[in-house]
Amino acid sequence: MAHRVATFTLNPAYDLVGFCPKIEVGDVNLVETTGLLAAGKGINVAKVLHDLGDDITVGGFLGNLNRDGFSLLFSDLGLHDKFLTVEGRTRINVKITEQDSEVTDLNFSGFNVTPQNWQQFVEQSLAWLTDFDMVVISGSLPKGISLDEFSAWIANVKKICPKLVFDSSRDALIAGLKAKPWLIKPNDKELEILVGHALPTIADIKDAALTLVKQGIDNVVVSLGSKGALWVTKDEAWHAKPPKCEVVSTVGAGDSMVAGIIHGLLSHSSIKDTLVFASAVAALSVSQPGVGVPDKAKLNRILEQIEVKIG
Amino acid sequence: MAHRVATFTLNPAYDLVGFCPKIEVGDVNLVETTGLLAAGKGINVAKVLHDLGDDITVGGFLGNLNRDGFSLLFSDLGLHDKFLTVEGRTRINVKITEQDSEVTDLNFSGFNVTPQNWQQFVEQSLAWLTDFDMVVISGSLPKGISLDEFSAWIANVKKICPKLVFDSSRDALIAGLKAKPWLIKPNDKELEILVGHALPTIADIKDAALTLVKQGIDNVVVSLGSKGALWVTKDEAWHAKPPKCEVVSTVGAGDSMVAGIIHGLLSHSSIKDTLVFASAVAALSVSQPGVGVPDKAKLNRILEQIEVKIG
Repeated sequence: MAHRVATFTLNPAYDLVGFCPKIEVGDVNLVETTGLLAAGKGINVAKVLHDLGDDITVGGFLGNLNRDGFSLLFSDLGLHDKFLTVEGRTRINVKITEQDSEVTDLNFSGFNVTPQNWQQFVEQSLAWLTDFDMVVISGSLPKGISLDEFSAWIANVKKICPKLVFDSSRDALIAGLKAKPWLIKPNDKELEILVGHALPTIADIKDAALTLVKQGIDNVVVSLGSKGALWVTKDEAWHAKPPKCEVVSTVGAGDSMVAGIIHGLLSHSSIKDTLVFASAVAALSVSQPGVGVPDKAKLNRILEQIEVKIG
Repeated sequence: MAHRVATFTLNPAYDLVGFCPKIEVGDVNLVETTGLLAAGKGINVAKVLHDLGDDITVGGFLGNLNRDGFSLLFSDLGLHDKFLTVEGRTRINVKITEQDSEVTDLNFSGFNVTPQNWQQFVEQSLAWLTDFDMVVISGSLPKGISLDEFSAWIANVKKICPKLVFDSSRDALIAGLKAKPWLIKPNDKELEILVGHALPTIADIKDAALTLVKQGIDNVVVSLGSKGALWVTKDEAWHAKPPKCEVVSTVGAGDSMVAGIIHGLLSHSSIKDTLVFASAVAALSVSQPGVGVPDKAKLNRILEQIEVKIG
């Protein structure tokens, strides 16, 4: 049976992606458009889980003036669309790659969430969030949502669905941690900010993760880029390392790892095997331009090359 | 009776406009969105003519994937929409203003016009272009249209509607001139490129404009920014100068001048009076954030301050 998972993206975005040999600030630049994609961290997780065969519901906020691209994506993929539509436009994130592979992000602001929008969202989401095997809350916050309101909502979500996965950064990450999510997936930089000091070695990272576990977060999975990922619980710790591979795009690699973690755990794999699987899904994502698992055979080939050891 | 004018914009764009204190290339920048506007030179002309009370038909190409913003604008303004819808997206021009007022343009590529699209456009436009008092062709060309095809189409448009106003730049301007439009409105820089040498004085600019008049272009109106505009025909030459005013935005000032020229001529004003009127419409546009004539009293106040003399 397909696993039932809900993913929340409170601050989705259209990614307007292009190539410009060299950006000249203060001048007119011609940019070759490579895509305009309905995107967002929770939506990326949903795409990957959908490709792995799970039954996915998506929620969050979308602006009424440019909802069409998202509605189309959700109906194309057969995702259950619980997004609340609010006045305004979903933001646009402009991403331009130059000749030397340097990427410039220009993240435009979007809609504002009113107190009425927020109240409606909280009531509706807590009402439909029954009977899910796992729930994911990913990404940043749009304007208008306070960090305290956000923490309180996450705590209520956890009461309904205890297997709560949370993946965010900066202020929203700190606010979310107050609700003690069941699993978090910071990267090493985010973990450094959380503990307030540099973490030069894997042993340092493990210690920092254990600190969070002791504070009530059952699972801390730290993504380490090309160095793999470290999964720490109160009972065990595992470090998986992907094979060296050509990097096509690191966009969505962390989201792909979150999806792999969820799919592995819901398939009743061990933590060790789940980490190997999630690392392979993330490595596959890095080797292709977009997120998703279009080629299961390729995923299996990568899976065989993941090294894993006690962390 | 309202004048009937058709404006063509072959390569319209959404303008995504924002403010960022300082753009850091290769980094993540937060941009405050100030607008996402359905735009294009011929559409700007149409907006201003509509505010002046004229009956406007708009044509050109639009992508099917993001036509909604344009359709909404045309129905809001009551413009007759003859745009041909083609596969793909209308391009997006990102315009970011920094703290020091420097503007960076990132012009993303859009749809491609196929030979079939072009053939359909030519047939349809030449069929509906009857009974117009004046026609305007403005702006650049999308991918897929050859300069020769473009010249040939303009020549056919002129056969149907002799009062043809043409305003473009670079290759498209040169191609359009082959069809001997009835009126062109280059700026001084564009005129320098056309004649192949610098034009440091008003007398030089007048000589250059006369060269084009002798080649069969009845009216050459050269816009000179804060120095006003010079109108040259075989019989007369006038130079109008606007009052000093605070510059809010120069975007669409040239298009506003084109609209003022058309409205003045169709109201049977003399060339001299039309140039004064068009200069006032352009100066009004510079003093406000968008194009259009929202405040006729303000236009009249500027009108009284335009200086005009024999050019």
